[in-house]
Amino acid sequence: MTMSLSRVEQLQEEMRASSVDALFLCLAENILLATGYWLQIGNLGFAVVPAEGAAALIIPEYEAEEAKGIWSGEILAFPAIRLDQQPAGQAILGHLGDLASRNGLKGGRVGFEGSFQAVAPPVLDGEPNTVASGTAAMIRAAFETEELFDFTASLEDLRAVKTADEIERLRVTNEIACFGLDAFKEASVAGRTEAEVAAAVNSAIVSQGHGYRGTRVVRSYPTVWSGAETADGWQYFRHRNRVIEENDVVMLELGTVADGFWSDHTRTVVAGRPTDTQRSALEAVLAASQAAFAAAKPGVTGEAVDAASRAACLAAGFEQFPHHTGHGTGFRYHESRPQIVPGSDHIVSAGHVIATEPGYYADGVGGFRHEDNALVTEDGAKVLATTSYGLDD
Amino acid sequence: MTMSLSRVEQLQEEMRASSVDALFLCLAENILLATGYWLQIGNLGFAVVPAEGAAALIIPEYEAEEAKGIWSGEILAFPAIRLDQQPAGQAILGHLGDLASRNGLKGGRVGFEGSFQAVAPPVLDGEPNTVASGTAAMIRAAFETEELFDFTASLEDLRAVKTADEIERLRVTNEIACFGLDAFKEASVAGRTEAEVAAAVNSAIVSQGHGYRGTRVVRSYPTVWSGAETADGWQYFRHRNRVIEENDVVMLELGTVADGFWSDHTRTVVAGRPTDTQRSALEAVLAASQAAFAAAKPGVTGEAVDAASRAACLAAGFEQFPHHTGHGTGFRYHESRPQIVPGSDHIVSAGHVIATEPGYYADGVGGFRHEDNALVTEDGAKVLATTSYGLDD
Repeated sequence: MTMSLSRVEQLQEEMRASSVDALFLCLAENILLATGYWLQIGNLGFAVVPAEGAAALIIPEYEAEEAKGIWSGEILAFPAIRLDQQPAGQAILGHLGDLASRNGLKGGRVGFEGSFQAVAPPVLDGEPNTVASGTAAMIRAAFETEELFDFTASLEDLRAVKTADEIERLRVTNEIACFGLDAFKEASVAGRTEAEVAAAVNSAIVSQGHGYRGTRVVRSYPTVWSGAETADGWQYFRHRNRVIEENDVVMLELGTVADGFWSDHTRTVVAGRPTDTQRSALEAVLAASQAAFAAAKPGVTGEAVDAASRAACLAAGFEQFPHHTGHGTGFRYHESRPQIVPGSDHIVSAGHVIATEPGYYADGVGGFRHEDNALVTEDGAKVLATTSYGLDD
Repeated sequence: MTMSLSRVEQLQEEMRASSVDALFLCLAENILLATGYWLQIGNLGFAVVPAEGAAALIIPEYEAEEAKGIWSGEILAFPAIRLDQQPAGQAILGHLGDLASRNGLKGGRVGFEGSFQAVAPPVLDGEPNTVASGTAAMIRAAFETEELFDFTASLEDLRAVKTADEIERLRVTNEIACFGLDAFKEASVAGRTEAEVAAAVNSAIVSQGHGYRGTRVVRSYPTVWSGAETADGWQYFRHRNRVIEENDVVMLELGTVADGFWSDHTRTVVAGRPTDTQRSALEAVLAASQAAFAAAKPGVTGEAVDAASRAACLAAGFEQFPHHTGHGTGFRYHESRPQIVPGSDHIVSAGHVIATEPGYYADGVGGFRHEDNALVTEDGAKVLATTSYGLDD
């Protein structure tokens, strides 16, 4: 029996393969990966992993106590927010310089998050952080090096395969998301506006999610669309103050994050009694979703999972819309691996958490999409948590 | 009488001063600055401003109709999301290449958003965009150039001074935020959890904000803290499932965005009857806030505004906590200019929109902070919209 490597050990293996001496992380999603700690404020927290030795978490003093309960490795704290102490930037640079000296990393090759074009917000989601020129300058100054190495691909690869603990955290997020999915079904009645339904979804997730199975912080990102326009629901949609009418199709697209772990869901309901065609269309995308998960066994390609979804949808009488069938999820709303699209050569692996969202959209009938998140196992992908309702319940 | 320059003309003036031939924008906040259009999905939309000639907005086909109602300049649309068309990346590169050719920009010096470490999310706020290596590679390929110029400082300078139209939009955002501030006062009663109060604030803003005075899309980012811990409220706080008790201090930190324009507010209330000390403490920070706004006249430094706030707080019997007194706001939750802190040499100008948030925090008494947003005029800064309640109402 092999002992599984910790996230830090996995990173160090990849670093040695790329001759990287130190890895500098500043995005909330990758600090979480390395340490399990979800950053409060963007660019006010970092993790450093040396190729050999112990990793360190660098965070504001006031977060140190909480972080100790989560990350058992080294914590270097700096004063922040209050202006009567050493400036945060100076203190951070001091910690980084010490750390580089102690570990013999000065002048070395430093890995950084150079290609993250999309990012997951930290707790303070109204102002997420990026990896801009200030970050690069700080790395150069602290490590006294010009040799920066873009470590993005390794990070994306590594984190696509979740650990047992991460899977459990994602299951919690999915269960919390279900509070919102249930609230969506309940709230989608004639007379409400789309915005009101979205507010109800957020309210259920935030109110019931905090404290749920030990969860500390929950955020949700719901968007709701209704009526004939849902036939354009393959586009990204956003709620309006449109009042839902009897027999309208109503669609929800929902991102949920609990302590840094993300889920991605879609539900479609009808405010009233669905037509036979509407019912059949939703059944077709449900069948497609199930077929995709059944096909998602270790070793198959993203293309094969996509094809299974489209075949099942067609067998149920509807042609799946040509947007992606699905994607990885977990450390971000949408992870880059695996892509479940035509032509994808990404290999599905045990421990992947994938979202599938087959859709059918027709003028006059409405838009129908269903999305759940599932863990890839030898027997196919198993849904982490789901709702019990369809169009009629 | 001088005609005021359009945003594009202002950018072009700055570009000529830095010998920049073309400006490439991909952050939602700066596309908004140049075109007035608020991007739906991160990295699925761009604006290009040539040093001479007309600017162009490059967006997905399905956003083109809506964008036409907002941006009267050129719109170059590309297929997106659906996989049965030309790939989006290819189409975007095609548009950029054509545009570069037409305007004689190939091989030129291209300005980009190189130093934005904090960013404002686009409409799809669960996954904001950054300016990473992919962006730089796209600029190099499309403009056939290696000469990238970091235009961040000019962008931050320009946008600190708002146009009449932008001020009106910010007034709308502030009015929408007041729906949430009022809901906060109403919801902050013993027996509710912090998370439930935060959910109520979001619900009011989202439900009442969509459609308000023509607003299309609203998002809100409330965090609520209560009890003795509010004495640590100078830290960034986040809501928990803690139940508010009678006589607890309750604090709200709130970011609100309406069609891309941001506001930043804080309120403090007591769930029950405040003590005399609590009442005096809140009056002191209110007096500090008013003094800061009165001092914020064109030509003074950020340091002088900060000093006015601290002096007023002290005159009211309390020493203001040594975090910043305030900052610019508008295109992002926190703008970089002007900084209202000790030592700030930023010059306050007419058209600046500033937030002040003086605070007092004492163990056993609680945390007290009040924050509004105000427009700098010759007579001092005028609050854009505010609430009518204090601790007692």
